Amino acid sequence: MSILTDQNRSYYNLTELKTDSDNRSMASKTPVGFIGLGNMGRPMAKNLLRNGYPVIATDVFPESRKELQDLGAQVFDTPADVAEKADRILTMLPSSPNVIEVYTGANGILKKVKKGTLLIDSSTIDPAVSREMAVAAEKMGAVFMDAPVSGGVGAASLAKLTFMVGGPKEEYQAAQELLTCMGANVVYCGAVGTGQAAKICNNMLLAIGMIGTAETMNLGIRLGLDPKLLAQILNMSSGRCWSSDSYNPVPGVMEGVPSGNNYQGGFGTTLMAKDLGLAQSTATNTKTPVPLGSLAHQIYRVMCARGYANKDFSSVFQFLREEEGQ
Amino acid sequence: MSILTDQNRSYYNLTELKTDSDNRSMASKTPVGFIGLGNMGRPMAKNLLRNGYPVIATDVFPESRKELQDLGAQVFDTPADVAEKADRILTMLPSSPNVIEVYTGANGILKKVKKGTLLIDSSTIDPAVSREMAVAAEKMGAVFMDAPVSGGVGAASLAKLTFMVGGPKEEYQAAQELLTCMGANVVYCGAVGTGQAAKICNNMLLAIGMIGTAETMNLGIRLGLDPKLLAQILNMSSGRCWSSDSYNPVPGVMEGVPSGNNYQGGFGTTLMAKDLGLAQSTATNTKTPVPLGSLAHQIYRVMCARGYANKDFSSVFQFLREEEGQ
Amino acid sequence: MSILTDQNRSYYNLTELKTDSDNRSMASKTPVGFIGLGNMGRPMAKNLLRNGYPVIATDVFPESRKELQDLGAQVFDTPADVAEKADRILTMLPSSPNVIEVYTGANGILKKVKKGTLLIDSSTIDPAVSREMAVAAEKMGAVFMDAPVSGGVGAASLAKLTFMVGGPKEEYQAAQELLTCMGANVVYCGAVGTGQAAKICNNMLLAIGMIGTAETMNLGIRLGLDPKLLAQILNMSSGRCWSSDSYNPVPGVMEGVPSGNNYQGGFGTTLMAKDLGLAQSTATNTKTPVPLGSLAHQIYRVMCARGYANKDFSSVFQFLREEEGQ
Amino acid sequence: MSILTDQNRSYYNLTELKTDSDNRSMASKTPVGFIGLGNMGRPMAKNLLRNGYPVIATDVFPESRKELQDLGAQVFDTPADVAEKADRILTMLPSSPNVIEVYTGANGILKKVKKGTLLIDSSTIDPAVSREMAVAAEKMGAVFMDAPVSGGVGAASLAKLTFMVGGPKEEYQAAQELLTCMGANVVYCGAVGTGQAAKICNNMLLAIGMIGTAETMNLGIRLGLDPKLLAQILNMSSGRCWSSDSYNPVPGVMEGVPSGNNYQGGFGTTLMAKDLGLAQSTATNTKTPVPLGSLAHQIYRVMCARGYANKDFSSVFQFLREEEGQ
Repeated sequence: MSILTDQNRSYYNLTELKTDSDNRSMASKTPVGFIGLGNMGRPMAKNLLRNGYPVIATDVFPESRKELQDLGAQVFDTPADVAEKADRILTMLPSSPNVIEVYTGANGILKKVKKGTLLIDSSTIDPAVSREMAVAAEKMGAVFMDAPVSGGVGAASLAKLTFMVGGPKEEYQAAQELLTCMGANVVYCGAVGTGQAAKICNNMLLAIGMIGTAETMNLGIRLGLDPKLLAQILNMSSGRCWSSDSYNPVPGVMEGVPSGNNYQGGFGTTLMAKDLGLAQSTATNTKTPVPLGSLAHQIYRVMCARGYANKDFSSVFQFLREEEGQ
Repeated sequence: MSILTDQNRSYYNLTELKTDSDNRSMASKTPVGFIGLGNMGRPMAKNLLRNGYPVIATDVFPESRKELQDLGAQVFDTPADVAEKADRILTMLPSSPNVIEVYTGANGILKKVKKGTLLIDSSTIDPAVSREMAVAAEKMGAVFMDAPVSGGVGAASLAKLTFMVGGPKEEYQAAQELLTCMGANVVYCGAVGTGQAAKICNNMLLAIGMIGTAETMNLGIRLGLDPKLLAQILNMSSGRCWSSDSYNPVPGVMEGVPSGNNYQGGFGTTLMAKDLGLAQSTATNTKTPVPLGSLAHQIYRVMCARGYANKDFSSVFQFLREEEGQ
Repeated sequence: MSILTDQNRSYYNLTELKTDSDNRSMASKTPVGFIGLGNMGRPMAKNLLRNGYPVIATDVFPESRKELQDLGAQVFDTPADVAEKADRILTMLPSSPNVIEVYTGANGILKKVKKGTLLIDSSTIDPAVSREMAVAAEKMGAVFMDAPVSGGVGAASLAKLTFMVGGPKEEYQAAQELLTCMGANVVYCGAVGTGQAAKICNNMLLAIGMIGTAETMNLGIRLGLDPKLLAQILNMSSGRCWSSDSYNPVPGVMEGVPSGNNYQGGFGTTLMAKDLGLAQSTATNTKTPVPLGSLAHQIYRVMCARGYANKDFSSVFQFLREEEGQ
Repeated sequence: MSILTDQNRSYYNLTELKTDSDNRSMASKTPVGFIGLGNMGRPMAKNLLRNGYPVIATDVFPESRKELQDLGAQVFDTPADVAEKADRILTMLPSSPNVIEVYTGANGILKKVKKGTLLIDSSTIDPAVSREMAVAAEKMGAVFMDAPVSGGVGAASLAKLTFMVGGPKEEYQAAQELLTCMGANVVYCGAVGTGQAAKICNNMLLAIGMIGTAETMNLGIRLGLDPKLLAQILNMSSGRCWSSDSYNPVPGVMEGVPSGNNYQGGFGTTLMAKDLGLAQSTATNTKTPVPLGSLAHQIYRVMCARGYANKDFSSVFQFLREEEGQ
């Protein structure tokens, strides 16, 4: 399930955001490098193959490489090897240290990158690291863009991801050509790092809205309001937010959301805690006060410590409710 | 400006919430009592007069009584006097102690209330006080309903308020007949006190969403994002909320909202702090954890102490930003 | 175990706080009323008996009355009955509504109180309620003082309580005469309500210090510091507080505190949550920002909901730690 | 003024912490390198000179180098130059990036460090960076220790600093020999990084205690308590902390602290915000929940944005109070 759900549909009507896949020539495509074949990277790389791009891939785990190889990708041992063969490379990695290693490590991309190569990093990391990578790439004559995604494994498989892209405007079209093979929406955000910034900002506000909705619904129920009626009132009023109208955390209020399925599926608390940690670090580094974002981070961090790590992040409703029998 | 703005339009399509003013007989109306002729009460009472209801009114301030008298209302000295003359009485008072005094004081309504009188309190107060008043009224054979409003002085003048009503279901229609003279929307919320509960819940989530939006927009701007673009991205994504898409706190992002007018007009910080105080007390009394609501309360409380008391509550964006020259 | 432990010893050296029990005549004592014979009230009343005061008591529970009767007290059915017989009355009740009922209810003290009676309330309640009771008592020609206690059941049994007293200075000596039979320390705080204020303030800062110590110790341990060494460093430095040096929440750092006994005994989380609720209400009513006090309240409220209600309040260390196996 | 004040005196009685300056040979001392001659580094380097150590120094600012040169130090252009000449080097730098540059940069210490060199970093930085530097130093055959200080410019001038030291136990004595020339207390904390950890932990708890004291004192005053009496009660009770008994933030309660001097001098809000940022980053990286520490960070961050950057951190009392005329 995607964090960005039906609401995204409106994207398609926004001319400036529209992608134009018709112009892409389907013949004689040059190979695309792909580094990081995890839960997200694998389906993304497959979608490149499906769109007719030869893929040159690597991953630290041989079995991940093997799977792509079986689907027709050419696989190599190191990022540097990939950089020798491809002049457009995507990376999809778990965290900042991995990105630093894959780009600037002993066998990193930048050891062998060709001049003019387009490097697109879809990892969710600190925007300051994105900017560092961009500087390092530029020294080698290459271009680095950040393009983190919204949407989970399902959206990756269905090529329904949303990409938020930061980097030089003049390279955006080239990036967009590849990203539209893997996502339904591609948004240009500005200079390098702003893709990360947009994702971090969205997820911080999302967390605040979700916890706020959970405590508000809980309070209303304690005060004698019917949860469905309360949700209806909020959604017609100024309390309305995505968590109240599209992903309500109270079991029984909405269908098709994790709260109706014992908080299985969806976007895990541990992932939200990670994104809030990035928001916190970024805010700390830029000396920006984020009082609610900071408290939201702490709440999800405590939840991770109290058995909610793998539940959907809307389980904060359950966390705040009184236990049975108390 | 109303807290509940354009979004309310959808109200009109909700059959169960629709008011039916056509059935109201415009002739031979019995008088309606009105107690509390302040900034909100005065225009509300006027709308009753406009709808052909004789009004029997009082207020602690003689000049407020005088103004209504000049418009054709009959005025008396005390709530008890009004209770002797009217069997439907509305009250619109600043806070819980005023409500307690007007209903149960030495010259209060309940000293002289007639059996079967319908008492409707539109003050925003602690739902526990509403329930106490209902019990006291019942002892005298009267019926008490709580019906707090959303919308400010402008909405009161234009009869565009939203009423959230709690009390016996069988009395709701009678209350609705009067309330539709003063408001565009009337929502039945359940037992007595639930009208207050709904209002308190909405405003708590509103405050959380507003502070969250302010800190998120501030963080994004610091990270190099264009504010309009960031608002656009949030509003298409899961960070979306009323404060981001209908009342954005960043100057220049939207038109026709207080952020574009130096935070003049709108819903004052001091009023938001009052409502959050009610939410906090209610949560404390029901032992409900409301971590973000509680911190939102503290932030608006500090703002009141630092010169923001009379600015619109979206000025939290300004409060959190770094000062010029820092 | 008392919240105020060894540190209190210094009390004895403070001349202005010294109690002078020698002047009390031990003969021909007039009776003292005692209302509220719960876990705290019972041992307090017994200490009055031990000091030679005839006790006239009541409680809503007949079995509590019976126990005192067997020890020599005269018992009656209602507070009004006690008020008829005694001109010095102590009350020890669970919360504000009980105090209001016992003083101003249909069979309350004030129905039959004699002019000149000294009323001392040792309940922990909202100072605003204390002030209301004082006004009501004054109307009947009686004097009301608030005198909440620090120290639990053990301290009550051993007459080691600390009383914080608010009320007319000229009545303080009379109050002190009785209170020194039940406590080791009696502190005069000022006008009526200031006893409650002092207790609420102390416990709010105590909660903040405890949670702060818990999270600091936890962070230090995660960063590789030995807990005993970290406590030693903090206690020699500016991080020092009562929770770090006298009641450390980390098992193994100190002996004789609840953290060494699986957080049994001590001061329960649910009691701390109650006191923080009072602090919160008081702060809300006086429009005082208390950001950390407010968050501390929320944390203890969540803990109550998650199984920590009956553990000592230092168990917040355990609450914040990562669970086994995570 | 030192954050660690009179309380430190007890240090001297702790045998395991006692420094033994008698064993230091005062003749034929080998030179000591010193990098970072800012407000803190300059007086520290002077104290080495005063103790008879030849000093070999550098700084990015020529005028800072000049001042030390005039006092008898030998100065060089780069850290690498210093590393060539000295086998014991101290560094005192503003933040993590400076430390990384000075150690691992193009002209950094590690470019020319001699095998067996003892490197002592007194900067306050992220313990993870300390550990990285230790690994990098070890690769070159050198030993890195972290030794951040408590105490400000005054304590540095008077050689009254407190050093918290992390690193190999077997190197501690050699480090201690130098550090005792500049400080009154040297505490061994454990493996490399634990010196930073101890400092960060202390300052986080200090900030929590200070804000807690400020809001508690403010609440008590609002409730009618005399500030001096309230401080006295807290300090005899479980609310006691360093900020209440040794550095009270309320003007007039204590003498000789910044609150009595319009919050001039002392430990600036901006420095506290920096240390809380480090605590926050460290907690985020180790997935440790620090709810009050996190909120304290946000409060000091907002204060920096609202004109309190250069006031002592106890000015949070002033920040939370209502403004004149409100």
